[in-house]
Amino acid sequence: MTRKLYSLCGSDRMRPFSPHVWKTTMALAHKGLDFDTVPVGFTEISALEEGATRLVPLLRDGERLVKDSFDIALYLEETYPDRPSLFAGEGGKGSARFVEAWSQTTLHPAITRIIIRDIHDRLDPVDQTYFRQSRETRFGKSLEAVAEGGAEALAGLSERLEPVRHMLKSQDFLGGASPLFADYIVFGALQWARIVSPERLLRADDPVSDWFERCLDLHDGLGRSVTAA
Amino acid sequence: MTRKLYSLCGSDRMRPFSPHVWKTTMALAHKGLDFDTVPVGFTEISALEEGATRLVPLLRDGERLVKDSFDIALYLEETYPDRPSLFAGEGGKGSARFVEAWSQTTLHPAITRIIIRDIHDRLDPVDQTYFRQSRETRFGKSLEAVAEGGAEALAGLSERLEPVRHMLKSQDFLGGASPLFADYIVFGALQWARIVSPERLLRADDPVSDWFERCLDLHDGLGRSVTAA
Repeated sequence: MTRKLYSLCGSDRMRPFSPHVWKTTMALAHKGLDFDTVPVGFTEISALEEGATRLVPLLRDGERLVKDSFDIALYLEETYPDRPSLFAGEGGKGSARFVEAWSQTTLHPAITRIIIRDIHDRLDPVDQTYFRQSRETRFGKSLEAVAEGGAEALAGLSERLEPVRHMLKSQDFLGGASPLFADYIVFGALQWARIVSPERLLRADDPVSDWFERCLDLHDGLGRSVTAA
Repeated sequence: MTRKLYSLCGSDRMRPFSPHVWKTTMALAHKGLDFDTVPVGFTEISALEEGATRLVPLLRDGERLVKDSFDIALYLEETYPDRPSLFAGEGGKGSARFVEAWSQTTLHPAITRIIIRDIHDRLDPVDQTYFRQSRETRFGKSLEAVAEGGAEALAGLSERLEPVRHMLKSQDFLGGASPLFADYIVFGALQWARIVSPERLLRADDPVSDWFERCLDLHDGLGRSVTAA
């Protein structure tokens, strides 16, 4: 097969966990496109495809090499226009950028604090060293100090998800009646936590939990193919 | 003219301020549709069009009567498909619901606290009585107690707008390269404050401020037709 998705994982190569790679995994499945997953650790990324990227996802599609989950979604939409749409029009592309920005600035900082120790503990030693150094530089404090904010972040996560909960009164997916890339953006963040951490981020009776379960069911249960931690 | 938009205002009938009516005002202009604005006070709403609604906006379009800003936008999109699109596809509709939910749960509660006294002070006495009673019931405390949270809400508003700021690194509008109804949703919230309150919600050097100014410029400066408080 000529289509390869480089996908971040820890010591267990069967448990890809990157939120951004999960967006792409779901996007490829949405388009009905086959691909091989190539598991890589943090420190292997910069050597992939002759130094093509420092971050995953990275998609090789025949002669083409595309990085960044949003750019990959745009690429797939343009390259495979006859497959089910990921955006359902230009307006869907525009607003998906807002959803991405919301997820990145609202969910990711909170979830990072909740699961940062779990991520670390699931990596190979060489990746643990890289992860600790890069995150401690980013946050300006030790991994353990970042994780100290985890309990508070967990307690506040439900409130951060209120826009999704409110929207679910009107429709089943961010895409409307059926899922679009906007759903996969938010799904990726929660799937990241589901795979890496035993913490339960959502109450079972939360409508957001129902939506997340619907997403896990999509594409023959693709999201469930990796079990919860 | 057969098209009438019932629009909330205070003592000054030339200063419609409802965030939801502003969404509709911009949506009508976006579609290039003429309309007459009919100013109404809070306590006049329930008597409009034989008791058609308890909330504005309410649009009379010939024989049709449509309420709720989102439903009106959907109605306009369906009824005037040859005019510029408000959603640019089904995906734009889905995600606009998310933007609405985000604005409603994130911006509105904060802005309400910041401007609630200003709203009250600009109403006719009969509407002041209604406004005080209905809001004190909603919040379970006095108007003054709600307003006590205003300074903190103002200090925190910039952070709440971070998703918009982050998105603006990728594109000029929530709709993408050009504005869609999703922009008018967020615009409505900030325009509400601009018209009612002398508080400045955005720093001049904030990219969100640049976006808001771009929105004020749209449709021949329609948003500027009512001056800032």
